[in-house]
Amino acid sequence: MKFIEKPTLIVDTEKASRNIVRMVKKARKADVKLRPHFKTHQSAEIAKIFRDFKINKATVSSISMAQYFARHDWQDITIAFPFNYHELLKIVSMAEKINLNILIASPEAAIKLTESNIFKCGVYIKIDVGYHRSGLEYNDLQNIDKTISILENSKALNFKGFLCHFGNTYSASNKEEVLNIFTESMQRAQTLKEKYATLLPDIELSIGDTPSCSISDTFEGADEIRPGNFVFYDIMQENIGSCSFEDIAVALACPIVDIHPSRNEFVIYGGAVHLSKEYIIDKDGDKSFGRVVSFNDSSWKLPSDKIYISSLSQEHGVIKATDSFIKSAHIGDIIGVLPVHSCLAADIAMEYRTLDNQIIKKFNSSE
Amino acid sequence: MKFIEKPTLIVDTEKASRNIVRMVKKARKADVKLRPHFKTHQSAEIAKIFRDFKINKATVSSISMAQYFARHDWQDITIAFPFNYHELLKIVSMAEKINLNILIASPEAAIKLTESNIFKCGVYIKIDVGYHRSGLEYNDLQNIDKTISILENSKALNFKGFLCHFGNTYSASNKEEVLNIFTESMQRAQTLKEKYATLLPDIELSIGDTPSCSISDTFEGADEIRPGNFVFYDIMQENIGSCSFEDIAVALACPIVDIHPSRNEFVIYGGAVHLSKEYIIDKDGDKSFGRVVSFNDSSWKLPSDKIYISSLSQEHGVIKATDSFIKSAHIGDIIGVLPVHSCLAADIAMEYRTLDNQIIKKFNSSE
Repeated sequence: MKFIEKPTLIVDTEKASRNIVRMVKKARKADVKLRPHFKTHQSAEIAKIFRDFKINKATVSSISMAQYFARHDWQDITIAFPFNYHELLKIVSMAEKINLNILIASPEAAIKLTESNIFKCGVYIKIDVGYHRSGLEYNDLQNIDKTISILENSKALNFKGFLCHFGNTYSASNKEEVLNIFTESMQRAQTLKEKYATLLPDIELSIGDTPSCSISDTFEGADEIRPGNFVFYDIMQENIGSCSFEDIAVALACPIVDIHPSRNEFVIYGGAVHLSKEYIIDKDGDKSFGRVVSFNDSSWKLPSDKIYISSLSQEHGVIKATDSFIKSAHIGDIIGVLPVHSCLAADIAMEYRTLDNQIIKKFNSSE
Repeated sequence: MKFIEKPTLIVDTEKASRNIVRMVKKARKADVKLRPHFKTHQSAEIAKIFRDFKINKATVSSISMAQYFARHDWQDITIAFPFNYHELLKIVSMAEKINLNILIASPEAAIKLTESNIFKCGVYIKIDVGYHRSGLEYNDLQNIDKTISILENSKALNFKGFLCHFGNTYSASNKEEVLNIFTESMQRAQTLKEKYATLLPDIELSIGDTPSCSISDTFEGADEIRPGNFVFYDIMQENIGSCSFEDIAVALACPIVDIHPSRNEFVIYGGAVHLSKEYIIDKDGDKSFGRVVSFNDSSWKLPSDKIYISSLSQEHGVIKATDSFIKSAHIGDIIGVLPVHSCLAADIAMEYRTLDNQIIKKFNSSE
């Protein structure tokens, strides 16, 4: 890579486009709506690739991210994060301008929302089908009933259905485990939806973690999928079985600043403030904070030996390498790192660079 | 806390000032120069507290951070990160304006520097006394000699001495372990310095991790200490024994968005994009991504029960609480989180807020 001064997140736009096309086709074939989660790339330029395929619904994780995409003419946005009462004014204001959907995770939150002066807003109820992070438990019919009736009694609110996130697939270690979690979670979600089918025939079921959406080919019972990470993928997804290394579309370009042949290690300028401190235990049992690739003229290439970040501090990454890799390495060389979790590495980046040194602008949380 | 809309990093400036005063007094008493590391707070306003005590030397971790503090009239700055050849032009330009010191970690890097058109610059050799991250090993006299002679032969470069970071103290689990690492590392560093004392009587020894500087009272053999984290501290430092919970000067204010009495958990708006994914295994053996405090009129208070973040995703924090804490919690309440690693949480923040809702500006890596 040329013109790299310091750690810089590089997007291989061909790979990202290929990942997008694959998911668009899969959703079409499975006859579900695709409402991609934009919290991974956070970029209107990358979002545009979806629009080229007539995808016009988006998912985001914060109000300010919704504001950013609304400014870039996205008119149908779901904020897939439990309703935050303290940002009510911004929600009210945005719901007047675009088709906005928000998430309610409890009757208490539903009441707070109905007591506001919101004029119109789509609302999903967040259902927990096994991940145990947020939402009403799928079998807590008492609170689900209560929440639905609060929402249905409001003229301003449009109860759209149930939204689930099978986030426990992220801790799976192979495709089979992902599919087991997916099947069990889908059954729970589908059963719940069917319970309300007579009374509320139009309600929808929205699901969408990247492992399930990458590995399963059918989404029967779901009306909408919301994967996000698949645009970039990362080594966590490769480790789970959602993608191959060749699908990973981002790499952090980092200068080598120190080399230690005696212990087969080298140090890059590239640390937790660039990659986040997410790690995986890889198939060999090694704790890895990122996997090293070599840049070539057109993209990057995984070396035949496993070269990886074995420890990470604020700005330093310590790389475990092999004898032969170390021998060919020099102070000042630029290497690439496939991140463990591309969403976090992308969130930190202020912008991206393409392989041919174009800038891709993105949302920054300071906006 | 009033006026909190979303996760916001709050600085208790009284606590931060107290931490600063304590370190200033300790350095004076121990007769070492204090060159505080500003990578933790990254704020000219907080740096000003040091200046009030006549501290006018600073340490930073990147060229752009050095540029920021130079703009705020800091005239003597050490970039405590191995020389990055790709930022040479910026280094050359800054070294013309202020007293700049940089770090060389190998003869190869020293040669690259001397081949540049740098006019003047202070240079430390980075020495590894046991942490095994970066630098020449303390007993690798061949390469140390070689590097010194390259630097000494340059008219532009001023070889200032040896710089060490006893970063292995961060994995200590009590004060005694910290002091053992400190003592062993200091002996190695001091022996090295003494080896060159006849030939180069003016060279200095710069050391400075927060655990050592917080726990040890004497720094015999060192000329300068460079702690940084101590201004804010965090629960990792509390766990090591560097500080008490009462010394921690930052807390992330977070809205509660979901409550689960059945499993004594609640969910905050506050995740890896606000706190980083750093964790500790605390004294009870629990994996903790942050410790919950309650805000009161003047500051915050640690509840008598341990309430902590047990898991963390991009924007969600899942809090393990007690029965009584859950009973008094409501959707929309603002709680505080003492971060695991304040340097990373502070790096992510675009600015700070004080307890009385003043903004404290800081450096942002986009600058």
